[in-house]
Amino acid sequence: MRLSQMLFVTLREDPAEAEIPSHKLLLRAGYIRRIASGVYAYLPLMWRVLKKVSNIVREEMDATGAQECLLPQLQPAELWQESGRWETYTKAEGIMFALTDRQEREMGLGPTHEEVITAIARDMIRSYRQLPVHLYQIQNKFRDEIRPRFGLMRGREFIMKDGYSFHADEASLQKTYADMDWAYSNMFRRCGLEFRAVQADSGAIGGAASQEFMILAEAGEDEVLYTEDGKYAANIEKATSLPPDAKPSAFVLYEKRETPNTKTLDKLCQFLNCSPTEVVKNIIYLVVYDNGRMVLVLVSIRGDLEVNEVKLYNELAKLAPTYGGNAIIAVDIPSEQVQQQLTLKPLPLGYIGPDLADNYITPAGQLQPGFLRFADRTVVELKNFVTGANETDYHIVGANWGEQFPLSDRIVDLRKSQAGDRAVHDPSQVLKSARGIEVGHIFQLGTKYSEALGATYTNEQGDNVPLIMGCYGVGVSRLAQAAVEQSYDKDGIIWPVAIAPYHAIICIPNISDIQQVEVGENLYTELNAVGIETLLDDREERAGVKFKDADLVGIPYRIVTGRSLKSGKVEVVERATKTSHEIAISEVAATLKQWIDAALS
Amino acid sequence: MRLSQMLFVTLREDPAEAEIPSHKLLLRAGYIRRIASGVYAYLPLMWRVLKKVSNIVREEMDATGAQECLLPQLQPAELWQESGRWETYTKAEGIMFALTDRQEREMGLGPTHEEVITAIARDMIRSYRQLPVHLYQIQNKFRDEIRPRFGLMRGREFIMKDGYSFHADEASLQKTYADMDWAYSNMFRRCGLEFRAVQADSGAIGGAASQEFMILAEAGEDEVLYTEDGKYAANIEKATSLPPDAKPSAFVLYEKRETPNTKTLDKLCQFLNCSPTEVVKNIIYLVVYDNGRMVLVLVSIRGDLEVNEVKLYNELAKLAPTYGGNAIIAVDIPSEQVQQQLTLKPLPLGYIGPDLADNYITPAGQLQPGFLRFADRTVVELKNFVTGANETDYHIVGANWGEQFPLSDRIVDLRKSQAGDRAVHDPSQVLKSARGIEVGHIFQLGTKYSEALGATYTNEQGDNVPLIMGCYGVGVSRLAQAAVEQSYDKDGIIWPVAIAPYHAIICIPNISDIQQVEVGENLYTELNAVGIETLLDDREERAGVKFKDADLVGIPYRIVTGRSLKSGKVEVVERATKTSHEIAISEVAATLKQWIDAALS
Repeated sequence: MRLSQMLFVTLREDPAEAEIPSHKLLLRAGYIRRIASGVYAYLPLMWRVLKKVSNIVREEMDATGAQECLLPQLQPAELWQESGRWETYTKAEGIMFALTDRQEREMGLGPTHEEVITAIARDMIRSYRQLPVHLYQIQNKFRDEIRPRFGLMRGREFIMKDGYSFHADEASLQKTYADMDWAYSNMFRRCGLEFRAVQADSGAIGGAASQEFMILAEAGEDEVLYTEDGKYAANIEKATSLPPDAKPSAFVLYEKRETPNTKTLDKLCQFLNCSPTEVVKNIIYLVVYDNGRMVLVLVSIRGDLEVNEVKLYNELAKLAPTYGGNAIIAVDIPSEQVQQQLTLKPLPLGYIGPDLADNYITPAGQLQPGFLRFADRTVVELKNFVTGANETDYHIVGANWGEQFPLSDRIVDLRKSQAGDRAVHDPSQVLKSARGIEVGHIFQLGTKYSEALGATYTNEQGDNVPLIMGCYGVGVSRLAQAAVEQSYDKDGIIWPVAIAPYHAIICIPNISDIQQVEVGENLYTELNAVGIETLLDDREERAGVKFKDADLVGIPYRIVTGRSLKSGKVEVVERATKTSHEIAISEVAATLKQWIDAALS
Repeated sequence: MRLSQMLFVTLREDPAEAEIPSHKLLLRAGYIRRIASGVYAYLPLMWRVLKKVSNIVREEMDATGAQECLLPQLQPAELWQESGRWETYTKAEGIMFALTDRQEREMGLGPTHEEVITAIARDMIRSYRQLPVHLYQIQNKFRDEIRPRFGLMRGREFIMKDGYSFHADEASLQKTYADMDWAYSNMFRRCGLEFRAVQADSGAIGGAASQEFMILAEAGEDEVLYTEDGKYAANIEKATSLPPDAKPSAFVLYEKRETPNTKTLDKLCQFLNCSPTEVVKNIIYLVVYDNGRMVLVLVSIRGDLEVNEVKLYNELAKLAPTYGGNAIIAVDIPSEQVQQQLTLKPLPLGYIGPDLADNYITPAGQLQPGFLRFADRTVVELKNFVTGANETDYHIVGANWGEQFPLSDRIVDLRKSQAGDRAVHDPSQVLKSARGIEVGHIFQLGTKYSEALGATYTNEQGDNVPLIMGCYGVGVSRLAQAAVEQSYDKDGIIWPVAIAPYHAIICIPNISDIQQVEVGENLYTELNAVGIETLLDDREERAGVKFKDADLVGIPYRIVTGRSLKSGKVEVVERATKTSHEIAISEVAATLKQWIDAALS
């Protein structure tokens, strides 16, 4: 393609709307244009990148025997009502765009396709002989994000590959899950990306095991904890680790102490001259279920540690049926104002003990009576600990479970792991932290959706049982931007060769120079003819402008038909390293072919 | 792909929901599944067909220098308000799905992309030096159809190729328009379809010239009129022709006659013993503009002819600004009940003359005073004609324009052409009729959208002027089904080789027969290795079931590893003709390769 015939417009200034480097660069280099909040047009250069990413994804999926299809974006509300997700997705979380058609029927714009594919499986799969089956698609998805941002990173319309597999048994699911782990690793490697597979939380999708694929980049919204031996990596939301060692408590005697103005842990430790590892801190959360039911939760955890709210969310979600709900609308530490509305008397905040009396709560309306008590595993081993006395300006010291305080029977891992923690698999390994951009996620769903939608099959024994499912996603448009976030410099984008919109760009420094034009035109024809995707900058612009644009757009190889022509050569500059080569005109095609093949292998 | 590993389910019975053969066959053969009214899942076989159609479309578009991109499906209401189409598309016609996001902003799901692309052009195109530019995309579109039907023919979610070109002058637009005519003809020919390019009405998209591409098929919703010399073809909505000859009127004397009970033309002609060609009939229409303004229209046309309501609609649309509106909501012949609400006294229906007095109309409310009078060209030459006397049971005979009746000064072509009419370009040619399925439409838009959205550029003279636009659509999913509608038999689909999901299917009649399996497996590997896309029917099914399924699914070549194996041969059956060949196993690949290449050339 000739730049003179292309809608090629670059910007010199960073656009005000963009916050992170990749977003700025894609806008400046003319890859994308914003049409609405979180909604972008992919201009021809971007579309070439997205097609290359999609093709790599497609090839790796096809190689596993998965079959490509295309499911509707418009989805009837009925299917989501069957799975129980309609209210959560359209109202409570409001993540799904909903609309009403001219017959007054409710429909949603698919953020994901578990319901649709399960309905199709219900309709078509009768027998174990038809299993396993794995269908996937590459398609625009929609999410009405609360805060669309960072360009294609968190958009409201974005391209996903999503696949769904159906199995007769767990072993078959495990096999496909392992195939996907392998296929995903191939995809991201082939795209030229530095990535890490990490254990992940399954979130609203549900199911058992799940794993995320993270592109490592400073601007990543996710934090990953990993060990250098390569044996452990997890999203911080999911990560487990050994807690830092605790110093044995010096308070051998049980006692209630006046501890004035020690609402914060820091002040308390200073006042008592103790370590946070000696303290059991007790935090109140409010959970609201989708049927409106509210529960106050009391979490006890060792003083130096933080609660991982995703872990807490998951524990509370499991209890939803106990309270007549399906899902959680929110889990938060209630504000003092909210607390005053919900409790009969002011809570002794900062001085709460693990045995805080249930009668603080008015059992009226939608609020459950009593506290739902959780103890993080780290408090179990504590002896002679310090904790709140349930009275302002007073703490207890030298307390023990089973003596002064009953231990909650809900003992679970609620702790937020952090860099520096020791690894569970090998305490000599210390967790390190990196930031990442999630571009892939694979799930073992189990029977959550097949049970809800009644998608069953007849097994070898002749019984009718629910299909076992897996699901597997890749954020195609997000991946394309993540590649930029991982690879740019002050002059612009540095595309990996595999997903660059073009392999090479020929800059004719002076288009009034007949020789320069002739060599440029000939090379342009020759390179494209041998499959080297080449742009020709034949615009009436100064050489400096052309070089700047080529760097900004990030084409891997820039060919300049300039001064070296007199010795029968052209200059070839590698974008990533800025290394310059003088290459004989007749050898340019062969040399580039070799470099490109090497980069793609 | 092995059928044993594919989600391969065929139905023996016609599904109740399907009305036309192609729809029934696509459902029965497992190509599509209905998810909601007018919304279908494309299963793997269908998706292969759609990818092949898309690739042909893409190759032909790219060959013209057009560049592929992808524009958002979610479109902000503001852009459609700028073009003046928001109200018409979401309310009056209601063809656009509209929704409100969590910020309470209105958005629509794109049925078309003139607004979005014009906004991008406005933003990026500054100078004539950047022109021409042609961008296209292949994408799901949405239309909230009043009556979704015929499967993919008239769906609510469907795949389109839509392209938009921008030009500095008319000549450049004409050039791209001609390129598209050529590219479209190539696409449809390469897809293996019998089609016709016809003159078309521009409809709600607007603009000057437009041309449709019709796949000829009995079930087509469109009627095409054409001449056998190949020089004329038009959608009946747009067609013009010479009217049938009129017999000179016998009523040489002007007279008002009592003509009791002659409300219909038949009865009148019987009573007066005259021909309908001697009569000027006068029909009342009611047009409602998008600002609520209503106008009663009086159309005079020769008695034997019909009004083409699309032509009338277009004439009335041109007058919208006169009445303060942008577009038309409806044009209809008002019911007697509506007439009684709108007129001061009952209209003498069946006896109306071209001079019906304006004072029938109450000028109150939103109704304009007076009739808007149109004369079809066919009435101009009539002499001594018969027409209504504006009095029940009375007609006028022997009337003449300019003597007893003033001729409206709005003389336009409003006549519906029909098969049997003589052609305008050569009166010796008679128009013939065929039914077609519209799969392509190209438009010369002019400056309609660029003016509305203020998309201007600086021309060579330094003036800031609106961009000149063209737009070009292909119904990709509709085309795929139209191919079936054009090519099937009692046993199933007969895909053209170019868009068949697979080229060949190997049926192993008896999978307990080791030799049959071995030959089948070897051929399966060999054919796929040389690029012949081959299915292997390795299911535990009777041979008859396999043959029936292969015919139903419509794969061009069926290979049977059956009886002829003992002479070292397999049977190869051509699906279209059912011709059977015995071919040596070693020659199957070469023979098929040759047939496929011939079919694709």
